[in-house]
Amino acid sequence: MIDFNYFSPTYIAFGRGKESRTGELVRRFGGKKALLVYGGGSAVASGLIARVEASLGEAGVGFVELGGVKPNPRSSLVEEGVRIALEEGVDFLLAVGGGSVIDTAKAIAIGAANGGEWRKFYVGREVKVRPMIPAALPVGVVLTIAAAGSEASTNSVINLEPENLKRGAGGDVLRPKFAVMNPELTMTLPPFQTACGLADMFAHVCERYFTPTRDVTLSDNLCEALMRTVVEESSKVMADPRDYQARANVMWAGTLAHNDICGAGRVQDWASHGIEHELSALYDCAHGAGLAVVMPAWMAYVYGADVARFARFARNVFGVGMGAPDSEAALAGIEAFRAWLKSLGLPLTFAELGAKEEDIPKLVATMHLQGGTMGGFKSLTEDDIAAIYRLCCV
Amino acid sequence: MIDFNYFSPTYIAFGRGKESRTGELVRRFGGKKALLVYGGGSAVASGLIARVEASLGEAGVGFVELGGVKPNPRSSLVEEGVRIALEEGVDFLLAVGGGSVIDTAKAIAIGAANGGEWRKFYVGREVKVRPMIPAALPVGVVLTIAAAGSEASTNSVINLEPENLKRGAGGDVLRPKFAVMNPELTMTLPPFQTACGLADMFAHVCERYFTPTRDVTLSDNLCEALMRTVVEESSKVMADPRDYQARANVMWAGTLAHNDICGAGRVQDWASHGIEHELSALYDCAHGAGLAVVMPAWMAYVYGADVARFARFARNVFGVGMGAPDSEAALAGIEAFRAWLKSLGLPLTFAELGAKEEDIPKLVATMHLQGGTMGGFKSLTEDDIAAIYRLCCV
Repeated sequence: MIDFNYFSPTYIAFGRGKESRTGELVRRFGGKKALLVYGGGSAVASGLIARVEASLGEAGVGFVELGGVKPNPRSSLVEEGVRIALEEGVDFLLAVGGGSVIDTAKAIAIGAANGGEWRKFYVGREVKVRPMIPAALPVGVVLTIAAAGSEASTNSVINLEPENLKRGAGGDVLRPKFAVMNPELTMTLPPFQTACGLADMFAHVCERYFTPTRDVTLSDNLCEALMRTVVEESSKVMADPRDYQARANVMWAGTLAHNDICGAGRVQDWASHGIEHELSALYDCAHGAGLAVVMPAWMAYVYGADVARFARFARNVFGVGMGAPDSEAALAGIEAFRAWLKSLGLPLTFAELGAKEEDIPKLVATMHLQGGTMGGFKSLTEDDIAAIYRLCCV
Repeated sequence: MIDFNYFSPTYIAFGRGKESRTGELVRRFGGKKALLVYGGGSAVASGLIARVEASLGEAGVGFVELGGVKPNPRSSLVEEGVRIALEEGVDFLLAVGGGSVIDTAKAIAIGAANGGEWRKFYVGREVKVRPMIPAALPVGVVLTIAAAGSEASTNSVINLEPENLKRGAGGDVLRPKFAVMNPELTMTLPPFQTACGLADMFAHVCERYFTPTRDVTLSDNLCEALMRTVVEESSKVMADPRDYQARANVMWAGTLAHNDICGAGRVQDWASHGIEHELSALYDCAHGAGLAVVMPAWMAYVYGADVARFARFARNVFGVGMGAPDSEAALAGIEAFRAWLKSLGLPLTFAELGAKEEDIPKLVATMHLQGGTMGGFKSLTEDDIAAIYRLCCV
């Protein structure tokens, strides 16, 4: 186990109807005037936005609105949000939606607290080392998609225009103050989006599980518990989207997959996320779908770096390769993972995703590897990453 | 899964030498003058108290001291601490030690913030329903014993004199602001104290695992991951008290066993803790030793309420009863648990603990059951509890 700091102060209000507490929670965490950020029509059409607004009104919290957040959230909307936040003097960001909405709100929270500056905190072509974010307005969340874990994480990922680079910022100041989590709000998600969310949260655990750090028995066991749960509950939510209990387990799993309870004391990987971000930036595909393509290819490429760990993954997460030698078990585990993704209806290849093999040089070129490599489990060069993309094509 | 609120904002600084950050952390969380609470000679003799004082000095934090906390911490020392805190105008409680020291600091923190009142927040003869604690001074922790989990929990347990009643208070205001966790500080613990800590943290998970709540796949899996880890690592720390990695896993497990990550969304039990508290109050035995006697007896008495859950415990935590029917597996699991406690050198009976069968009426009489019963897994009357005590005698 390596030394670590762990600080996850997000207040979670979990259960049916909890969105009625939104106004009270904004006040509790110091908000008097909020910028309410949301996405498209479904949050409005379902009546959720109206319920949240009513709750704000009851608590005496003023608000202005910014709708229209898209998946792979765009920097242009962040700019607009920062402008509104500064003009209107808001002191709180309230995100009603999933990861894209929350990440947009976090970016606006940075800009509003730093005189309009936010972009320089997103690691990219110019910024090689993640800079400290000195301040951000407080952010609260009403979660509608179980996937990104941004409701309790330190991170925000934004698609930086005009180059279309998906880049991240991070820091303790970005942890939301509260997250309202009502599993009923996720029941109307289409099956494909539900599946993408399952792949995303599973990947968040993988990025921590596949580590070179030794003697991390506790977090190894926690990671496996999380991954097994996501697999166990996935068939229930896919079979019956209105299964409250399965939705509740999946929703809470999405949070714990990314609040870093599984990552404390471990060197983490995050290469698959980096490799995927280039895909969703270029093709505007769903992040979870991109991960379904990238993760098994990454596994097939890197498993030789620690066969025993992949054998353990196979046995303890998917229950395969039990009597087999490690090398066979490792491959059986990757196959089982792929089969699980397929069972969710997710793409597994470039072709199924709508990506093109001839774009690989462009994908690699925009990556701006920090220090020339990427990945904590196995350090990957540009050539390695191109090879992984090629594995996605077969 | 039942609705829940989850709020665990304790900042964790984990690793070698982290006690040097104590002063900085007290300042970060608003402290200018601390009451430094500790126990006996070992923290002084080891030089830890001097290192902590140096760190406070470097950060410009003033302090006064209160040593002498004993296991099963006494209310008289709390009274003294409250008096000092008020007289000296301290604004922060710094606990250097294990659960007894932290719980004493928490009680003083309540008293100092409520004009000297603290006792009325501890549920006892007069107080039947846990009252809201309106305020408490901030508490920070330098942890030296992996056991109680009080470094990140909402609870404090004090032995109320002169009646010798061990009673608890609880609330979000009692969550420590930070916990410095250096596994090296636990290496000099005697084997018996180490074992008591292992039993205590295992019990904290059990109190959450044995629940009547259905459809809690995620926290079921997390509970089992925690319990398996404690069992796996216990043989390593007992064999080599200076095994840093095993100490680190055990120390972090003790925190996660009681910060309620395993309890979110579940009806919890806590009967075993209540039954044990009467023992350590009357005989001044170690809480973990008392739990080693009580827990298996409680299990043997209640397992019929949900045989399948005990069979799952057997298979997923101890790997026994795999092919057997549930009723056999359940009993095999309780036996395996008992064997594990015995392997740690812990007592299993009243005689081994130094308790007396003829005291059972007295133990039951002082219990003051809330609503006449105790326990969320199976509701226990006074007669049930007497029967469990009698099972501890054979």
